[in-house]
Amino acid sequence: MLNFTFHNSTKIIFGKGQIKTLTSEIPQGAKVLMTYGGGSIKKNGIYQQVCAALEEHEWFEFSGIEPNPKYDTLMSALEVIREHNIDYLLAVGGGSVIDGTKFIAAAALYQGEDPWDILAKRQAITEALPLGAVLTLPATGSESNGGSVVTRDGNKLAFGNPLVRPIFAVLDPAASLSLSDRQVSNGVVDAFVHTMEQYLTYPVNGNVQDRFAEGLLLTLIEEGPKALQEAFKEDLTVRANIMWSASLALNGLIGAGVPQDWATHMIGHELTGTYGIDHARTLSIVLPAVMKVCREDKRDKLIQYAKRVWQLTEGDDEALINQAILLTEDFFQKMNMPVRLAEVDLSASDIDKIIPLLELHGMTTLGEHRNITPDVSRKILETAL
Amino acid sequence: MLNFTFHNSTKIIFGKGQIKTLTSEIPQGAKVLMTYGGGSIKKNGIYQQVCAALEEHEWFEFSGIEPNPKYDTLMSALEVIREHNIDYLLAVGGGSVIDGTKFIAAAALYQGEDPWDILAKRQAITEALPLGAVLTLPATGSESNGGSVVTRDGNKLAFGNPLVRPIFAVLDPAASLSLSDRQVSNGVVDAFVHTMEQYLTYPVNGNVQDRFAEGLLLTLIEEGPKALQEAFKEDLTVRANIMWSASLALNGLIGAGVPQDWATHMIGHELTGTYGIDHARTLSIVLPAVMKVCREDKRDKLIQYAKRVWQLTEGDDEALINQAILLTEDFFQKMNMPVRLAEVDLSASDIDKIIPLLELHGMTTLGEHRNITPDVSRKILETAL
Repeated sequence: MLNFTFHNSTKIIFGKGQIKTLTSEIPQGAKVLMTYGGGSIKKNGIYQQVCAALEEHEWFEFSGIEPNPKYDTLMSALEVIREHNIDYLLAVGGGSVIDGTKFIAAAALYQGEDPWDILAKRQAITEALPLGAVLTLPATGSESNGGSVVTRDGNKLAFGNPLVRPIFAVLDPAASLSLSDRQVSNGVVDAFVHTMEQYLTYPVNGNVQDRFAEGLLLTLIEEGPKALQEAFKEDLTVRANIMWSASLALNGLIGAGVPQDWATHMIGHELTGTYGIDHARTLSIVLPAVMKVCREDKRDKLIQYAKRVWQLTEGDDEALINQAILLTEDFFQKMNMPVRLAEVDLSASDIDKIIPLLELHGMTTLGEHRNITPDVSRKILETAL
Repeated sequence: MLNFTFHNSTKIIFGKGQIKTLTSEIPQGAKVLMTYGGGSIKKNGIYQQVCAALEEHEWFEFSGIEPNPKYDTLMSALEVIREHNIDYLLAVGGGSVIDGTKFIAAAALYQGEDPWDILAKRQAITEALPLGAVLTLPATGSESNGGSVVTRDGNKLAFGNPLVRPIFAVLDPAASLSLSDRQVSNGVVDAFVHTMEQYLTYPVNGNVQDRFAEGLLLTLIEEGPKALQEAFKEDLTVRANIMWSASLALNGLIGAGVPQDWATHMIGHELTGTYGIDHARTLSIVLPAVMKVCREDKRDKLIQYAKRVWQLTEGDDEALINQAILLTEDFFQKMNMPVRLAEVDLSASDIDKIIPLLELHGMTTLGEHRNITPDVSRKILETAL
């Protein structure tokens, strides 16, 4: 096990009916800005529940934070903040709304010249507005971590700071019942790949981390496809297991003390940035190819994954690995996700566009061994054709 | 899954050589009281490492906190705190030192008449001195939770409050290398039973919690016996896995959203209070008897435990349960722990002493169903004879 620091201070308030706790979680006297996306929260009643909980608070709202939240959109929230002297943010939505709100929290108090530098020049922030979150789409884990990804002109750029970690997060699985199948699929696969990025590397005898990661993968494999079936459409237990898995997949715990990969994400970000493909759909395409191309580097963990997650026992190591990769693709397909670039209408010529972008964004030594050069990334994308 | 709130703000600093981080974790200008036990930390060099890290701090020390820390001992620390205007506590030791230091932290700022009321009358505290911890004995999880058990006149009494949750905890597995076999055994079994108290109840479809609990049990079963073998005596990996498992076994995570039992602990506390038997040794005696007596109430989880933790596949449900109980006893015995009262020289007549004490301490409806009355507790102890 590697040395690590783990510090996750977010208070998780989990379960049906918990949105009402906002009343006491947000300090009395705070001037609150509620942020959200395209307005689906008005259709499913979450907005109304939040309004009821904030009845005794002074609050304003800022809507229109899009998937892969855009820098310009977020910057326009700063005007509302200045106008009303906002001192507390409440993000109501999925990973994009929460990520975007984190950037707003940082930008609002940024002392440098241009908040863009937080992303582009990785300028450290020294303060941020406090924020809480009401999660409606289990996927990114953003509700209890300090990370954020913001898009500008097709460039997806990340920043991270404990100052923007939500103070609390309400996880009400009922809030996820009205999601579309596509949103559910994206969320489950996003959480699955987050787990794999921290698990499928090389062994360092981090037994607890490995068992926890396997536990999340097992849960997502078991519960994910159920959430797409008519019989389980209203099943809160299924939604609760998915929601808690997705949160724990990226709250820092399973990645503490073990190597991490993240090549799939970095390559996937370019596909989203350039072609607007849903984040999770880039992951379901890229991960199997990473498993194939990095097979030797990941050999021990691939075998462990085959045995412990897919319960495979038949055949030699090569057969185990082959089966495990096939079963991973099969799981993604059960979740109605693409596993090849052709399924999202991309071909070899598109790879020629993506590789220079990876280079432009400094993504030239990816993976847990930092040995995924642009040439290897090309091989990964070619394998995914 | 049940509704829950999970909030663990302790910063975990894990790994060999991390004690030096005390320098920056404890605020400059703090007047620190370092608390410890019988002085073993001077023999194994931990004391010296702490001194080096605190070189630029003003600090004092208070030693002599015993296993099952005594109220009178802890109260005498208050004089040192007043004399030197201490405003930060640093517990260096195992669960007893940390538990005791939590009580000191609460008692030092207690506004009521008598700090004893915190324990005896469960009087709420409203403030406490901040504390950090350097863990030397993986076992209780006290380093990152808000619970504490204090003993007075043979009575073991507990209190819990987030105000006494350590702000940070240094978990250096090297600090546990010099423990005696008995201390290692006690620690591993304590962590194992903590996990079981939150796992072996009845199913609520808390898949993540179940997989995480099983992951901790599997790790402790695999690594615990190694720590007693000559070949692994200096193996930091084994110690790291035990230390991280023990911490996660009682940091609130695996118990969030699932029913909890704790009958084994409550009955065990009486055996320690009356006869001075090591805490973990009471657990290894009582748990198998609880599994037998509460077999019907715990049936579904016993079968799950048999299959997922012990990988049992042969036989019908009854056979699976029988084997799982035998394997649990076998594991405790491999850890050189007693599994019957006779092994600690107790007999039927002692049970007559224990039952009235359970009643005296209000332990009359134990277990996840609150149906372990004194009569059932008697049956459990008789089963453990």
